Amino acid sequence: MRRVSIIGIGDTKMGKLPECSLKSLITEAGNEAILDAGIEKNIIEALFVGNFNSQALCGQGHMGALVSETLGLGHIPTLRVEGACASGSLAFRQALMAVAAGFYDVVLVGGVEKMTHQSTEVVTSAIASASAVELEASLGATFPSIFAMLANRYSYEYGDIREAMALCAVQNHENALLNPKAQMQKKITVEQVLNSFPIADPLTIYDCSLVTDGAAFVVICATNRDVGSAAKRKVDILGSGHAGDTLSIAAKRSLTTLDVTVNAACQAYSMAGIKPEKIDFAEVHDCFTITQILNIEDLGFFNKGQGAEAVAKGKTARTGKIPINTSGGLKAKGHPIGATGLSQICEVVAQLRGEAGTRQLDRSQIGLTHNIGGTAATCVVNIFRKGES
Amino acid sequence: MRRVSIIGIGDTKMGKLPECSLKSLITEAGNEAILDAGIEKNIIEALFVGNFNSQALCGQGHMGALVSETLGLGHIPTLRVEGACASGSLAFRQALMAVAAGFYDVVLVGGVEKMTHQSTEVVTSAIASASAVELEASLGATFPSIFAMLANRYSYEYGDIREAMALCAVQNHENALLNPKAQMQKKITVEQVLNSFPIADPLTIYDCSLVTDGAAFVVICATNRDVGSAAKRKVDILGSGHAGDTLSIAAKRSLTTLDVTVNAACQAYSMAGIKPEKIDFAEVHDCFTITQILNIEDLGFFNKGQGAEAVAKGKTARTGKIPINTSGGLKAKGHPIGATGLSQICEVVAQLRGEAGTRQLDRSQIGLTHNIGGTAATCVVNIFRKGES
Repeated sequence: MRRVSIIGIGDTKMGKLPECSLKSLITEAGNEAILDAGIEKNIIEALFVGNFNSQALCGQGHMGALVSETLGLGHIPTLRVEGACASGSLAFRQALMAVAAGFYDVVLVGGVEKMTHQSTEVVTSAIASASAVELEASLGATFPSIFAMLANRYSYEYGDIREAMALCAVQNHENALLNPKAQMQKKITVEQVLNSFPIADPLTIYDCSLVTDGAAFVVICATNRDVGSAAKRKVDILGSGHAGDTLSIAAKRSLTTLDVTVNAACQAYSMAGIKPEKIDFAEVHDCFTITQILNIEDLGFFNKGQGAEAVAKGKTARTGKIPINTSGGLKAKGHPIGATGLSQICEVVAQLRGEAGTRQLDRSQIGLTHNIGGTAATCVVNIFRKGES
Repeated sequence: MRRVSIIGIGDTKMGKLPECSLKSLITEAGNEAILDAGIEKNIIEALFVGNFNSQALCGQGHMGALVSETLGLGHIPTLRVEGACASGSLAFRQALMAVAAGFYDVVLVGGVEKMTHQSTEVVTSAIASASAVELEASLGATFPSIFAMLANRYSYEYGDIREAMALCAVQNHENALLNPKAQMQKKITVEQVLNSFPIADPLTIYDCSLVTDGAAFVVICATNRDVGSAAKRKVDILGSGHAGDTLSIAAKRSLTTLDVTVNAACQAYSMAGIKPEKIDFAEVHDCFTITQILNIEDLGFFNKGQGAEAVAKGKTARTGKIPINTSGGLKAKGHPIGATGLSQICEVVAQLRGEAGTRQLDRSQIGLTHNIGGTAATCVVNIFRKGES
């Protein structure tokens, strides 16, 4: 299996962007990634697209072909990959497999989502299609209600974590203040989180991620193929894992351990040949604040039941032992569903290259991305390292 | 790159099936394929799902996880692949690449679509999302109108082919009479096609493929991995190609040559190391009768401009030089969009094994499947050979 590197990244401002269309988001992020890689478009051999909602919210399917035509990529093979909120990471993993196997050398991977032009009702219904519709969503089990249940069960098993959950939101908002592309650039306090609009007890509006328009693209390349990109800006893909679980929450083995995270992480660590202690920083799926706490445990950064205390002690802050979501995360950078996984990768690559501006970390040799879909029914974990100059 | 074989197939009756749900279609075809392979479920390492419409027509996304939970496949990685009407073939190709590269040994690939419960208006709108919505569909360019334009241009360049188009429908209906799983089991005549309800001149209702509920699954396996399946029933994947083109018809290079077909076929023939003359029979994408004529030329079975005459002379009939669509094709077997490509593969495997019942061909050593998406914006071609006993 061949080694594969990232040679270009590009992403849009995230947010409520009424002035942007699907195509303008694609054009901006896609061309930025290609320009960043320093390559001509005509050496791109295939395109993988992550997208969840365009059929439901924009009336446009067949997004592989749409993205290719929009970017002027000619006759290359294209496809769309979908796995709910993990769609972007899944597209990335499929592209990685295709290059690792030798089918292609240079591949473009893009994620895009345009959501904020639709009403809350329409968006909520579209998002609910990522859950077990017949068994759960149709009975009123929305994502906030399901994740609130996980928070309550976690508190029952390991003690109250309400303040630690709020602190995840506070820290992610702090990080987003340093990210000019983040959707929410607003400092918040623990008190504000606790006292804001209730969504599903104990979750308030500040415990929930955002509805976001945005796009993120990366160019990947067989590591030993010289396409003229600056070698010192290459980022190597060390490991990748992909796991699944039941679509319905009712059929899960546990409500306080996300098996998909454990299993995908295990594969990624094994492929990279490293242990969790070696990870310097990570972008972790925080669709809700409770999800971030579960995941930092299930990724092996902290023992089960100790994630909340670690957050409270600042270990996941930007200056902590293992900075989590320096981009601002889904909570504050935004959650453009099909682009989210690729947006995480853009952040990790920027940090590894030392190009993360005012939010640049001191220690950024090995970074991890973690992205889940639905009620933790799909998970992709990737591990990256600064390329050898 | 490792060799890969098909070891199991399963498909449902195709048609308007009000008694079947998404889940019942998945259960029937998925379990049939697993049973046919003679394996236990717990050796399946990953699942790839082709689906186009379930978000729009059933309110259910995240189909990888849904199919996995429905079949009880546990914690394996899953994903959905979408490329309009080529979604099933794309899922198959992604699975093939993953096994060829060594990521997995045994993989399940499934396609499913549930469409007939919705109104014609809703279904038409959902299908239109496979085209260039902003540039063409929103201006009234439906798929029948676009393919009618191809037929008119072809006639302008190569002479009248109206009767040959009608004959494609007549032959596919004849073949479907021998396929108990086909949606339309009804003999038709050229006169009936020509005089039936007009859709978009010159296409009548009998020139158009069907709206279909159905599912089709295959189990693939690294050829050298012994999982206990009967070796003599193995079918080897000799070649595979995947090409793309612009989403919009306006931007195409030609209206009478489908570049995606030419390019995907070229890749598949090259990988298989054979020429078109070696293909004994094929399942060819016939969303409209004109599409079948264009494709049998672009696949290299007949010279450009000679497809219509070949059809008129019976060369593509079941007893002809190269039988096309022995299953009945999209026209008469049915077109369950995300399942179509896999349904084609099920037919080719059945023929190669000698298990095609009353429609069994005498000469069936090497078969080909061809599946396009949208206005020929995506194409996958696969070539199969009876496994060595």
